[in-house]
Amino acid sequence: MKSSIGNKIKLSVFGESHGAAVGCLLEGLPAGFKIDFDALLVQMSRRAPGKDKTATTRKEADIPEIISGVLDGVTTGAPLAIIIKNNDTKSHNYDNLRDNPRPSHSDYAASVKFGGYNDIRGGGHFSARLTAPIVAAGAICRQILKEQGITIGGHIQSIGNVCETSFDPVNVTAEQLEGLSSKLFALNNPEAEGLMRKEIEDARLEGDSVGGSVELVALGLPVGLGNPMFYGVENVVANILYGIPAVKGVSFGAGFGYASMRGSQANDQMYYDENGKVKCYTNNCGGITGGITNGMPLLVTVALKPTPSIAKQQKTVNLETGENATLIIEGRHDPCIVPRALPVLEAALSIALLDLLSEEGKL
Amino acid sequence: MKSSIGNKIKLSVFGESHGAAVGCLLEGLPAGFKIDFDALLVQMSRRAPGKDKTATTRKEADIPEIISGVLDGVTTGAPLAIIIKNNDTKSHNYDNLRDNPRPSHSDYAASVKFGGYNDIRGGGHFSARLTAPIVAAGAICRQILKEQGITIGGHIQSIGNVCETSFDPVNVTAEQLEGLSSKLFALNNPEAEGLMRKEIEDARLEGDSVGGSVELVALGLPVGLGNPMFYGVENVVANILYGIPAVKGVSFGAGFGYASMRGSQANDQMYYDENGKVKCYTNNCGGITGGITNGMPLLVTVALKPTPSIAKQQKTVNLETGENATLIIEGRHDPCIVPRALPVLEAALSIALLDLLSEEGKL
Amino acid sequence: MKSSIGNKIKLSVFGESHGAAVGCLLEGLPAGFKIDFDALLVQMSRRAPGKDKTATTRKEADIPEIISGVLDGVTTGAPLAIIIKNNDTKSHNYDNLRDNPRPSHSDYAASVKFGGYNDIRGGGHFSARLTAPIVAAGAICRQILKEQGITIGGHIQSIGNVCETSFDPVNVTAEQLEGLSSKLFALNNPEAEGLMRKEIEDARLEGDSVGGSVELVALGLPVGLGNPMFYGVENVVANILYGIPAVKGVSFGAGFGYASMRGSQANDQMYYDENGKVKCYTNNCGGITGGITNGMPLLVTVALKPTPSIAKQQKTVNLETGENATLIIEGRHDPCIVPRALPVLEAALSIALLDLLSEEGKL
Amino acid sequence: MKSSIGNKIKLSVFGESHGAAVGCLLEGLPAGFKIDFDALLVQMSRRAPGKDKTATTRKEADIPEIISGVLDGVTTGAPLAIIIKNNDTKSHNYDNLRDNPRPSHSDYAASVKFGGYNDIRGGGHFSARLTAPIVAAGAICRQILKEQGITIGGHIQSIGNVCETSFDPVNVTAEQLEGLSSKLFALNNPEAEGLMRKEIEDARLEGDSVGGSVELVALGLPVGLGNPMFYGVENVVANILYGIPAVKGVSFGAGFGYASMRGSQANDQMYYDENGKVKCYTNNCGGITGGITNGMPLLVTVALKPTPSIAKQQKTVNLETGENATLIIEGRHDPCIVPRALPVLEAALSIALLDLLSEEGKL
Repeated sequence: MKSSIGNKIKLSVFGESHGAAVGCLLEGLPAGFKIDFDALLVQMSRRAPGKDKTATTRKEADIPEIISGVLDGVTTGAPLAIIIKNNDTKSHNYDNLRDNPRPSHSDYAASVKFGGYNDIRGGGHFSARLTAPIVAAGAICRQILKEQGITIGGHIQSIGNVCETSFDPVNVTAEQLEGLSSKLFALNNPEAEGLMRKEIEDARLEGDSVGGSVELVALGLPVGLGNPMFYGVENVVANILYGIPAVKGVSFGAGFGYASMRGSQANDQMYYDENGKVKCYTNNCGGITGGITNGMPLLVTVALKPTPSIAKQQKTVNLETGENATLIIEGRHDPCIVPRALPVLEAALSIALLDLLSEEGKL
Repeated sequence: MKSSIGNKIKLSVFGESHGAAVGCLLEGLPAGFKIDFDALLVQMSRRAPGKDKTATTRKEADIPEIISGVLDGVTTGAPLAIIIKNNDTKSHNYDNLRDNPRPSHSDYAASVKFGGYNDIRGGGHFSARLTAPIVAAGAICRQILKEQGITIGGHIQSIGNVCETSFDPVNVTAEQLEGLSSKLFALNNPEAEGLMRKEIEDARLEGDSVGGSVELVALGLPVGLGNPMFYGVENVVANILYGIPAVKGVSFGAGFGYASMRGSQANDQMYYDENGKVKCYTNNCGGITGGITNGMPLLVTVALKPTPSIAKQQKTVNLETGENATLIIEGRHDPCIVPRALPVLEAALSIALLDLLSEEGKL
Repeated sequence: MKSSIGNKIKLSVFGESHGAAVGCLLEGLPAGFKIDFDALLVQMSRRAPGKDKTATTRKEADIPEIISGVLDGVTTGAPLAIIIKNNDTKSHNYDNLRDNPRPSHSDYAASVKFGGYNDIRGGGHFSARLTAPIVAAGAICRQILKEQGITIGGHIQSIGNVCETSFDPVNVTAEQLEGLSSKLFALNNPEAEGLMRKEIEDARLEGDSVGGSVELVALGLPVGLGNPMFYGVENVVANILYGIPAVKGVSFGAGFGYASMRGSQANDQMYYDENGKVKCYTNNCGGITGGITNGMPLLVTVALKPTPSIAKQQKTVNLETGENATLIIEGRHDPCIVPRALPVLEAALSIALLDLLSEEGKL
Repeated sequence: MKSSIGNKIKLSVFGESHGAAVGCLLEGLPAGFKIDFDALLVQMSRRAPGKDKTATTRKEADIPEIISGVLDGVTTGAPLAIIIKNNDTKSHNYDNLRDNPRPSHSDYAASVKFGGYNDIRGGGHFSARLTAPIVAAGAICRQILKEQGITIGGHIQSIGNVCETSFDPVNVTAEQLEGLSSKLFALNNPEAEGLMRKEIEDARLEGDSVGGSVELVALGLPVGLGNPMFYGVENVVANILYGIPAVKGVSFGAGFGYASMRGSQANDQMYYDENGKVKCYTNNCGGITGGITNGMPLLVTVALKPTPSIAKQQKTVNLETGENATLIIEGRHDPCIVPRALPVLEAALSIALLDLLSEEGKL
């Protein structure tokens, strides 16, 4: 199994949901960067469960320990090992899952792949808990990006059938992103929150779950970042985002909307702004042409599937008996993963962009 | 610049549109595989321009020469270097583009990245002509997959506002895919062809272009291929597909449709089929759970933007004078890239899957 | 900084000598392997300091905790994170070293590289203590190799001017290697031990240190492992061995002795043995031809420099004042690193070979 | 098979001795570098056979064509594909080798690895002819290094029992290296040439071959290049050098000589020179401490085995009949590969160092 990614900035994730700890290794950071640990905890807190009824009631302390690569809060240039101890695990809830794989979970595929030796307690290495160290690593990368004038942000684009106002692809500002960056329920239009919460609560009450989508932005990237073919911004960003559980679609700028456009509509025509910078009137390309940044905001949209762990009875197979079976999943589960997934996706985007910048010596 | 991808099966693409040749290196193939060169040429032919009015009228012979790694038509285990000589290039058409970058092309971003040293003739290394060697490499990978019982296929899902019948996500067959695999205009419902061609012709007559989308399938993959985090099937496939020009969205199974689903709708419940194989009643996950194949058809949808080279006057900047400018692009261009992009995307998918299989010793 | 290596089996090392812990991540192990933790501790013990006067008197408990990737002592297929907590650190001994870099240590080069932000306490990430997790990781790989019929071993070839009997390059046996595999002072000819210990003690009494060399062997490798050019056995093995502190020379088979040989002397002529296996009369090539194993024992020789930390006064510079200076290094140091380095080098060899085997699907 | 190496500067070699061509791909070069093609041909000429009696009498034109990545002699930033067509191949000489593997050649190991499908004509992909594109690629890298003030050089250290004057490890100059850089028989002490040529001629007249060693130097590297563990200068350099046929030993600075030294002898004590630069009185470490450059000359010694193709009768096996056999190798072979290997090793060193510099953004 490979759980690492990146070239110059390399992230390697380890741990199991009900093991001793989850954590990650973050290699390639510049020496001499002072980490803002409070800002890191804010991001951890956005991902942490147990905040309200939209999420699982499990409590996870989620205080990362950085056990290497940092001295007196400053990076030394050596690899950072980040550890998050596990608590509040109730493994007994999962005992019958080895025989009865949960629909749309990795249980069956993983069981075949690992010959049944994979740790299934709480999802093991497949658990969304593994995203906690990604948030910690991403928070550090995000701070380094910020020092370079690059701002990362995002909002919940939709939950179920409730959509909200998208970012203005041309005029989205760093202030706007900063304002969202510590929110548990990050929205451009706060009025959508009630409708979205209702969508989630309706699902929860029915023992069901609901999907959604998020929009991510990066502002301040230098022009010329990326490559035309296989190490382009889109490749690198999509590659890491598909590492986050529940992600089933990734698009850039107008994305799937491009499919029904004419070129004359779609093309982002150019001009010099008052400061002599090259700008586009529109930003359908989401800040990337030919795999390379063009100076416009980087725009990514991500689709997330509904949490597959639902309380309703489902059909499955019994791998032990070789017969069809039914399953009711016990335990505490997120009726909607989208609000908690947003900071994870922002973190992943931060890691990918820092890798691209480092790789090209643009840090 | 990095133009290579893959771990065990490594593809490295080189060349420029108006240089001596385009080509690629394909490393890691097993020794002893007999290449069907005719089948390879069929795929080249699907991508080749000049076939009809939906594409540019440029003629490209596109006969790949395999200058290493093959002896008497059989792979030796050594790297394959594949060369496609360039002909029929009219470089003078592009002379004014160095100063006036084309909207939504890589011209401006590449000019900044490479300090103006990049070859802009015909798009240079950024040209869609660079997809010709990918088709050649992919055709070989596809043949090796086929020998393993794995079939790759695809169809045009939409052009502009014309959509056609999707694959049946559960019951799509290898025969169906084989039937499409040599088509220039691959459709499940041939009646859509007229409407799609009209959509393209309308755009062309207006000096415009039009986008679209395609759906790709892989059948026969073993259960257990991929990884939960960063070397999952979705990561690897999205990574390579975003290397194909014009791709702006990649999704798997229900993809963006997942965002508005309930878990109870979305989950693919399981059963044993008559042969004792684990199957799902539905296939919203597109054959992948937790990054790993589950034995159902692999389903990928790709959005393609309209060709940015249109005949209409557009606003741009003059990098030489530092003033705003207008531009009319001359030359022969595809009013719609989608039909020619389909075999390229199938080729890329083939390469990615062969890499995954090889990496896991499943070949 | 990059502290990771390997393709399919990936080792990433982290930690600092006087930080919270040292450790490593070991990715890519097969699922279902039962780890013999006692055998692992034997290897840790061979590397641990404080055993006798040949080594530093520091005590390090060196009990590795495997915090992920293992359930009930059996690998799950997920990454193993191995942690070794630090104790008995006396950081105050090192305080004057920031200004006065120690000759032939990395102090000066690292100070320039990391702008002075590197952790210098006890050598930080540059400390030989970082080899402890390599031994732990290597011990696991060695066990997996053994299950495949592959035996790793080694002996001290020389310390200072005392050399001992080399392995018989053709007839060295697994039993012989096993006999050495738990020894603190591994020698083919135990009589050499007294002379070698005297060589070390003489150096120690003079406040000096002494270098040496070791010979490593792998038996039972399949024929056909490796590659002719850049992923050959020699490349991969040399690459990892040069990651072990103090290594300044790596050679295979006759190594530097080849330089003065005639081809007729050097060539390893072949025959069928009584079991129909292809064998060589001699083994100057050390089991590798054209980067690929040929079925004969793999033989590697490694040269190690004397520990640069000596008690004698030395000339250095003062980076603070910009003036020349003298330095006397305090603290507890190994007068000879060779006996403790041997299990580290055996571990590194085990990791490299398991990577090669995994990469080629030969596991 | 993997025939590529490098991170930021990536070299991929392809071709077979008796195929259409040999060549390589060189990725990651900066845009805007003007290649001196004449200087490149000088290096090709140093490696080319047929110059005198020390080498094979085969004639190879060895004029590389750069078919991509260069426009008007200037790099564009896109990958360079370099092709060298094959001529003067006499495949019939090799026909009996499939059954009778040549001692100390890769024939047997490769036959097992590739199931007999490898191209054996002239050694196929294993042929030393594959070093021609490495010289071409390395010559370009060497020119880029020179522009950065970094000079690469080397000399023949020994042939058989004839050794010559080593470089002064502290005071070797760029002028000295430049003086050697176009020589066919590069020596510090030209008087050794006669003795060395006699050593080779003696071997040749007896139908035998002879080994040797070379010493390589890099001057002008910045302090702080490299890493303490697995991407150190020694790892990267040894990794690529072991990709060159016949290399069986690689050491740095005092290398194997370190084994018998005391620390007080071995340590390179430091001082400020008249320009305020940190220097060492000695250079046993060969310019590298802790895997990182310290500003002293980089010194590498490489041992090369005698060419295994000798005219004398040798014992081997017949893979077809399964019986022991004898073999007399026909054809034209180098009685000593050392003079021709030197420019190849210099080229490989140049590629490795440019990769390290690029990777760290120090270019």
